[in-house]
Amino acid sequence: MNAILKTVSSGAVFDHPEFHDHENVVFARDAETGLSAIIAVHDTALGPALGGCRMWTYAHPGEALTDALRLSRGMTYKNAVAGLPLGGGKAVILADPKTAKTPALMEAFGRHVARLSGTYITAEDVGVSPADMEAVARQTEHVRGTHATGLGDPSPYTALGVFAGIKAAARHVFGSDDLRGRSVSLQGLGNVGRALARHLHEAGARLIVSDIHAPAVERAVAAYGATAVSPGEAHAVTADIFAPCALGAGLNSKTIPELKARIVAGAANNQLHSPQDGAELAARQILYAPDYVINAGGVISIALAKPGMDDGLVREKTLAIGDTLTEIFSRSGTEGRRPEQIADEMAQERLTQHV
Amino acid sequence: MNAILKTVSSGAVFDHPEFHDHENVVFARDAETGLSAIIAVHDTALGPALGGCRMWTYAHPGEALTDALRLSRGMTYKNAVAGLPLGGGKAVILADPKTAKTPALMEAFGRHVARLSGTYITAEDVGVSPADMEAVARQTEHVRGTHATGLGDPSPYTALGVFAGIKAAARHVFGSDDLRGRSVSLQGLGNVGRALARHLHEAGARLIVSDIHAPAVERAVAAYGATAVSPGEAHAVTADIFAPCALGAGLNSKTIPELKARIVAGAANNQLHSPQDGAELAARQILYAPDYVINAGGVISIALAKPGMDDGLVREKTLAIGDTLTEIFSRSGTEGRRPEQIADEMAQERLTQHV
Repeated sequence: MNAILKTVSSGAVFDHPEFHDHENVVFARDAETGLSAIIAVHDTALGPALGGCRMWTYAHPGEALTDALRLSRGMTYKNAVAGLPLGGGKAVILADPKTAKTPALMEAFGRHVARLSGTYITAEDVGVSPADMEAVARQTEHVRGTHATGLGDPSPYTALGVFAGIKAAARHVFGSDDLRGRSVSLQGLGNVGRALARHLHEAGARLIVSDIHAPAVERAVAAYGATAVSPGEAHAVTADIFAPCALGAGLNSKTIPELKARIVAGAANNQLHSPQDGAELAARQILYAPDYVINAGGVISIALAKPGMDDGLVREKTLAIGDTLTEIFSRSGTEGRRPEQIADEMAQERLTQHV
Repeated sequence: MNAILKTVSSGAVFDHPEFHDHENVVFARDAETGLSAIIAVHDTALGPALGGCRMWTYAHPGEALTDALRLSRGMTYKNAVAGLPLGGGKAVILADPKTAKTPALMEAFGRHVARLSGTYITAEDVGVSPADMEAVARQTEHVRGTHATGLGDPSPYTALGVFAGIKAAARHVFGSDDLRGRSVSLQGLGNVGRALARHLHEAGARLIVSDIHAPAVERAVAAYGATAVSPGEAHAVTADIFAPCALGAGLNSKTIPELKARIVAGAANNQLHSPQDGAELAARQILYAPDYVINAGGVISIALAKPGMDDGLVREKTLAIGDTLTEIFSRSGTEGRRPEQIADEMAQERLTQHV
């Protein structure tokens, strides 16, 4: 692209197809540390915009902007449906987390967060660790998920919320949330998948497990008597429930026709490759628990934790994800629209009621 | 431009030829009032980034971004050389000030300024009035030039600084700053030009005046015995000093060969059409007072005024523009570089010394 085209087109941020109704988008630099970051604040009607900071090697700054815009909008919906007094935002740092990340760079990012006077609250995301957030916290109070601010690792709460959501889905489809004897195919045994496996095992479910990391699978087989399959088979095995807990976009035109489960309910982000895939699930009479509703336990723990407090409130709000999903499934049946459409509407209702 | 190109290219803000070393650039929207604004913070090494808010109907958002980036960088240099404890920033609102401006829109802009926690301080600029700034001030304290914050109209201080600068230039070229009998061609009799005419008249200068607004010319002729010429002739008349006080870029490859004055020293912004025009002035042995140095009286009054204080400090700092120009002219002679180059270096020195 030549310089003139760049000059003309780089003002087109406002015209970006994902800009939607974003409130503000900040392009931030720090000459000394080489920081380039984009902070997108989508909506603050319900409160400050909370959303993680991702570090990634984007092929082009345009990709980074698209990512920041999409993810911040997603956080608005997620936080609204989770009943949190928070809006949606997201930050991306354009750098390779393996080679370019330094405490000084994270502190420079923290100073840019501080400049936004609490409009945006940051937290961990892909490529960013708790230690990185400690560096950010040296420059701004508008950070969550550090040792000083919270309960530590949010994964156990994400898992608890997904477990509550699976029970709500089982109640809707099978008439009972008793998981004894129900089979669940768990795709991904990372921090969340592992904790979810334990909840499901303790509830009496039969587990089929998969992960690209073999030792994680071996541990689940040994501990819970789980059946191991390859990650590529996880969606296609015979099971009552499919729980995607790995990277996103696993539900697509190839995998959906192969599903045998009656329920899809897992922790992964962006499970549907496209909106059409939600329609395909509905056409196959498979109940889908909208990803950003069922996996909100992590953000609930990050948002509500306070130094020194026990996790009673966080657990209560996280378990309420089950009630929210029950309402979504019920309205979906009554109103004839899909669960993910009802979830979006519910978010919009909460945003509108507040204004 | 199609949507995909927009997606890719709109991330190119970081690659914009004018992005330089900007610290952050904010794209701000307000759905309710229709506000679209860009706030550019170039450099805060010396203090919060002070710079006006311009409202303009840009042909394309890319033009608005280019304008914001260039002007904010210019404010860094202007504020640094004026010796102010302030960095450089600028805001542009993408709208027609004649049709789209409402108090609610200006308040929405004020809320976005408030979000930047004092990193950026706003003020009037083209298309924005004192009344508009009062609306902004209802939402943020980070605004200057309102009735509550300052001395009101900055034009008298701009004129005072230009007058001090003209005397410094006369001292450098003619060996005396006594303006009795010196002739000055004044291009533009707006708020600044009119006040400058009075100073020059009181100092005994002979005035040649021009303006596109005939009554302004008639008043100067009547009050000061000035000679009237057309604005297009102002640069070419026989005079000791040419003082451009109208819109910018008046010094170009067409006008410079026609100049008869030994000095160019006026209030207009961006007087040189290109850096090469500065070289042409130097080649013709015409002394040029760098525009952003000589016209800093306005920003000095905006920056330093406090509610209820008299204007002693502001006048002192404004008159010091003469000393700064004397230093610039002297270094220019000694170091063999042009005044506008020395001014840029002086700004960079002040920025670097501070870090």
